[in-house]
Amino acid sequence: MADSIKASNITWHHATVSPEDRSVKNGHQGAILWFTGLSASGKSTVAQAVQSVLFESGCQAYVLDGDNVRHGLNKDLGFSPEDREENIRRIGEVSALFCDAGFIVSTAFISPYRADRDKARALCPDRFYEIFVKCPVEVCETRDPKGLYQKAREGKIPEFTGISAPYEEPEKPELILDTATLSLEACVAEVIQMLQKEGILQA
Amino acid sequence: MADSIKASNITWHHATVSPEDRSVKNGHQGAILWFTGLSASGKSTVAQAVQSVLFESGCQAYVLDGDNVRHGLNKDLGFSPEDREENIRRIGEVSALFCDAGFIVSTAFISPYRADRDKARALCPDRFYEIFVKCPVEVCETRDPKGLYQKAREGKIPEFTGISAPYEEPEKPELILDTATLSLEACVAEVIQMLQKEGILQA
Repeated sequence: MADSIKASNITWHHATVSPEDRSVKNGHQGAILWFTGLSASGKSTVAQAVQSVLFESGCQAYVLDGDNVRHGLNKDLGFSPEDREENIRRIGEVSALFCDAGFIVSTAFISPYRADRDKARALCPDRFYEIFVKCPVEVCETRDPKGLYQKAREGKIPEFTGISAPYEEPEKPELILDTATLSLEACVAEVIQMLQKEGILQA
Repeated sequence: MADSIKASNITWHHATVSPEDRSVKNGHQGAILWFTGLSASGKSTVAQAVQSVLFESGCQAYVLDGDNVRHGLNKDLGFSPEDREENIRRIGEVSALFCDAGFIVSTAFISPYRADRDKARALCPDRFYEIFVKCPVEVCETRDPKGLYQKAREGKIPEFTGISAPYEEPEKPELILDTATLSLEACVAEVIQMLQKEGILQA
């Protein structure tokens, strides 16, 4: 919580503010929770719930997802392989900035290509947690909250991941969440436990 | 400062975390301090000092500048008018994300075109503070910490703002800092006073 600043007597001690300075202030490390999985697998739902739990316990947390990125920073990009690559490249770079700023930032994007996820990881290898939100395409298709699978089956959406475009499963994710069988609470608990074990959060 | 989380008993109350939730927690509003001016006018120096003062008083603050953006998110961009426009567009979008996340985020880029700055402003019109770091090109050229003006005069850097490319001064900036005459402390004090007057910081 911020103190009042006396503008008549401005002083400071740090030339810049380091990630260590921020982690001391915040009581946790910065980190990137990279959620990956099919459309409707539950990435955003878990990411938002994790954010809420973290925020309510006093952490700095943020979610990058389609709502705040696809219509803003990446509104110039489509769904071709090249644009998907650039989409994930930019999200990786922005998540690295949030991590540098001390946040536990979650990204909730399909991010179907292994090579693109690995490039994002390479930006912050010590602070990058790949979370595979695993759910059979048949289950995702039953959920289909935005009617996207139906449109894809009708051929109205070309290159739809899991139907007409590939999804490359993570080979060594830090965490796998099977949302077809786990409750949302259990998924969140797994993420929190991982962050505690890794020393991002105090146990 | 974060509390410990009991992973065996996960609960949360907010479906998402709003900017209001964040401002209550942080004790200040999110805001964008958009520093604009010639190379070597003092943008980064003032932005870093403002960040230090804010951080040391308990605020969440961050600086986007050439060091963390030009070599990362925008490393695919050059200095043509089109690339400068895209550079500023992305920085505007990223600063809007940081503002949404509750930060007082400073951007320290020449941002020479009025139209590009106005587009950035339009993303967060109520939280956008354009700060014109005003310094005669002759003074900037004397400082020339990176030797860029000299290279520009020698024709080694094409399209260098203030020498061979235009700088469009802000027409109605929220603040003007004349770094040829004001001390760094005085510049920082002016920014803090503006934030207090605008209700971003408590007075």
